[in-house]
Amino acid sequence: MYTTTTEIRIHYALTDQMGVVYHGHYAQFYEIGRGEAIREIGYTYKDIEAMGIIMPVVDIHSRFLRPAKYDDLITVKTTLRELPAHHKIVFHSEIYNEAGDLLNTGDVTLYFMEAKGMKRCEMPKALKDKLQKYFPAKD
Amino acid sequence: MYTTTTEIRIHYALTDQMGVVYHGHYAQFYEIGRGEAIREIGYTYKDIEAMGIIMPVVDIHSRFLRPAKYDDLITVKTTLRELPAHHKIVFHSEIYNEAGDLLNTGDVTLYFMEAKGMKRCEMPKALKDKLQKYFPAKD
Amino acid sequence: MYTTTTEIRIHYALTDQMGVVYHGHYAQFYEIGRGEAIREIGYTYKDIEAMGIIMPVVDIHSRFLRPAKYDDLITVKTTLRELPAHHKIVFHSEIYNEAGDLLNTGDVTLYFMEAKGMKRCEMPKALKDKLQKYFPAKD
Amino acid sequence: MYTTTTEIRIHYALTDQMGVVYHGHYAQFYEIGRGEAIREIGYTYKDIEAMGIIMPVVDIHSRFLRPAKYDDLITVKTTLRELPAHHKIVFHSEIYNEAGDLLNTGDVTLYFMEAKGMKRCEMPKALKDKLQKYFPAKD
Repeated sequence: MYTTTTEIRIHYALTDQMGVVYHGHYAQFYEIGRGEAIREIGYTYKDIEAMGIIMPVVDIHSRFLRPAKYDDLITVKTTLRELPAHHKIVFHSEIYNEAGDLLNTGDVTLYFMEAKGMKRCEMPKALKDKLQKYFPAKD
Repeated sequence: MYTTTTEIRIHYALTDQMGVVYHGHYAQFYEIGRGEAIREIGYTYKDIEAMGIIMPVVDIHSRFLRPAKYDDLITVKTTLRELPAHHKIVFHSEIYNEAGDLLNTGDVTLYFMEAKGMKRCEMPKALKDKLQKYFPAKD
Repeated sequence: MYTTTTEIRIHYALTDQMGVVYHGHYAQFYEIGRGEAIREIGYTYKDIEAMGIIMPVVDIHSRFLRPAKYDDLITVKTTLRELPAHHKIVFHSEIYNEAGDLLNTGDVTLYFMEAKGMKRCEMPKALKDKLQKYFPAKD
Repeated sequence: MYTTTTEIRIHYALTDQMGVVYHGHYAQFYEIGRGEAIREIGYTYKDIEAMGIIMPVVDIHSRFLRPAKYDDLITVKTTLRELPAHHKIVFHSEIYNEAGDLLNTGDVTLYFMEAKGMKRCEMPKALKDKLQKYFPAKD
């Protein structure tokens, strides 16, 4: 299992007239969390794109438990529960406020695809190598 | 069953550097579709709020099949499959491009809540009355 | 002078916790207005990009007079006051609510640039030809 | 003069299909910079709203010199050049990339207004007191 955390300060643009963060913006929080999760193993999503691979999102499931509010410093906890075997990778996100309340969870599934030709492919080996140590072989 | 359709023209702000609509923006398309679905029965979400009732989103599940692109005129087909019995309502959305390809589906669950006190409540009777004819009693 | 109008319905995502449209979203309204202005002369910005020309924004000046609110049907009036002589084009936008109140004005300056090489260029001749009739020669 | 700096990492949602940050998002960068500028003197915009005062934006002027790109870590430098005498305050923003290139400048004018009644008012005294030391009296 590989887990990282990232903090995001809620600015005004993210709120709506209900006085809370608009539900549609949580997908961005997951994205920021994923990006930092990749960065922390010494890689960036930008590097992946530079290798000619893109990672389109194919499925998102979000559950909204409590609202995030203006000026909250939220924590996005991003977890990779399994090393992807094929072209598919799933990130699990949990979002907490400063009091430690769980506000939201999200499961985001992405594919690895070759930008040219748009064919599904495997996770780049260099990235997989860096992640391997978080997923010890079971026997 | 109650179904309506709405068209949305994709502007530049909705695209990302993959050259397609950013996945996080589909929640807005569902919202626009829901808003127009309510408007077409002679009501608005604004009316609902004026009655002291808000409808927070509690769950969204999106599946991304094909990308929407800049300048596409997409159609959001919004369906209410069941009349809500209690405080919960589920809208099903399908998004098509001009060629009729299904690009995306979304299931959005919202609660009816009293803005004051934030207690769950039933769908306003006036709104339910207008929807009733689309859901004939089975016998 | 060349003027067109476009209507936009304000959805929830565009509001903020002040209960009005977030100021940062007006740039999108100008963009939508410009896009429709070009479409109405029988062209699209997408066509321009397909010719290898992009139009980055280099300057925006917005004045906020009255707020737009949720569910407002705003009208964006887009005016081209002069045919561009060189690589620069300026669109003037005025945004009105349904009561006809002026809510906002914006002046947006864009450049015509060759996507390859990123060199400034002239407005495509085909587009200029279509606009010419709105700008009769003075003598 | 009072100046602060804040860093923002560009995520995918902020890019558009030109491969750069969409011009309409810079207003959010100015907002984040202003918010942090207020926080650094021991105050928050949230505190100001809790006092019954809101600060609507009345004018923005942006100049776009170079594009910001995906994964750039931009620096927003926010400057208050004068202590507001009346209901009006102007923040000047400069945005730099990691190489130190100036990408964008923005001047944002806001009003102080009483949320109830929407009447213009002065900057809250507590906030002005904290800023005073950055603006020594001239003689």
